[in-house]
Amino acid sequence: MTGPSYRERLREEILTLTEQILATEGLDAVQARRIAKEADCSVGTIYNIFGDIDGLIVAANGRTLAALGRSLSAALDKTTAMPVRDQLMQLAIAYMQFALENQLPWQAIFKYRWAPGSEIPASYLDEQARLLALIEGVIDRLIPQAEHRAKTARALFGAVHGIVALALDNRLGGRLRQEIEDQVRFIVDIVARGLTQTETAGA
Amino acid sequence: MTGPSYRERLREEILTLTEQILATEGLDAVQARRIAKEADCSVGTIYNIFGDIDGLIVAANGRTLAALGRSLSAALDKTTAMPVRDQLMQLAIAYMQFALENQLPWQAIFKYRWAPGSEIPASYLDEQARLLALIEGVIDRLIPQAEHRAKTARALFGAVHGIVALALDNRLGGRLRQEIEDQVRFIVDIVARGLTQTETAGA
Repeated sequence: MTGPSYRERLREEILTLTEQILATEGLDAVQARRIAKEADCSVGTIYNIFGDIDGLIVAANGRTLAALGRSLSAALDKTTAMPVRDQLMQLAIAYMQFALENQLPWQAIFKYRWAPGSEIPASYLDEQARLLALIEGVIDRLIPQAEHRAKTARALFGAVHGIVALALDNRLGGRLRQEIEDQVRFIVDIVARGLTQTETAGA
Repeated sequence: MTGPSYRERLREEILTLTEQILATEGLDAVQARRIAKEADCSVGTIYNIFGDIDGLIVAANGRTLAALGRSLSAALDKTTAMPVRDQLMQLAIAYMQFALENQLPWQAIFKYRWAPGSEIPASYLDEQARLLALIEGVIDRLIPQAEHRAKTARALFGAVHGIVALALDNRLGGRLRQEIEDQVRFIVDIVARGLTQTETAGA
């Protein structure tokens, strides 16, 4: 009776340890031997639960994605009555804020390289899709066609992500937050304006 | 008389070897011991020339940035008489193309993490500034104010970069090129439209 429950608890403990290492030291510090030692289990047990070290990293990154999703949803919840531009802006600023406040786990998501030929787990793709669905939900009154809407959401997410990632990478020092925010506001504003005009033109 | 010249040739040889490894296997395969063996020199010699392995990686990444700069300049040279939108589009598509055709060296630029507190070499920042100057040159008739122009160029570069990076990371398979190109065209088009309207409104 204790078997599955022990395994479930151990899985949780290993994931929590991995999240702590990601948060304080980053992706390169996630090593099976160290985690096994801290969780007081064998490396084999970790592999048994997560398949391999990549399985553990992907599971931990999936948690970061889920936390990001919660932050974005919370930001969006405050904007239901607002115009599209303001809703997109809230989402973008919340994304920036999450990246700034969780730099190492957030970088780990994008630093991690899928092995060539490996299949990205469905649960991970679901987390991604949930994030994009937040943007799609905002623009669905402007872009009724689903495929076009999905593409627009991906482009907008990529644009905001790229600005934040490049700026954090070059470490602009004290100017960092303001500089990123200015760039994010610029791009979201110009895209929102363009999308709204398209709507007006099409109406 | 042969000292400096030998060192210069060895520096060149080591860099070329590193570029080959970056192109075929990527950043993680760049290791001092292996390169020393292939260049038939000692690890100490590599460190003597480049400071440390990071110095070598940064020098090789600087070459990739320079090659990217040449590709973008060549694309831009064909567009001198064109409207701003078309010039920006040429630049963005050339950037996408370079990333697709040089995936591993291009990823190495962004995968490489500057050690905390380390100073980014001036030569590297110069290469970056040259890339941004290409965009700034295109939009300078729209945005006369230098700081605002620089910020706009960085935001636009970040946006296009983010779209390409995210799409390549998730490996969309056969749809990859078309999907990236659609998203890049969407964002450049909407930004160019916005910038041109601002100009018209301001005129």
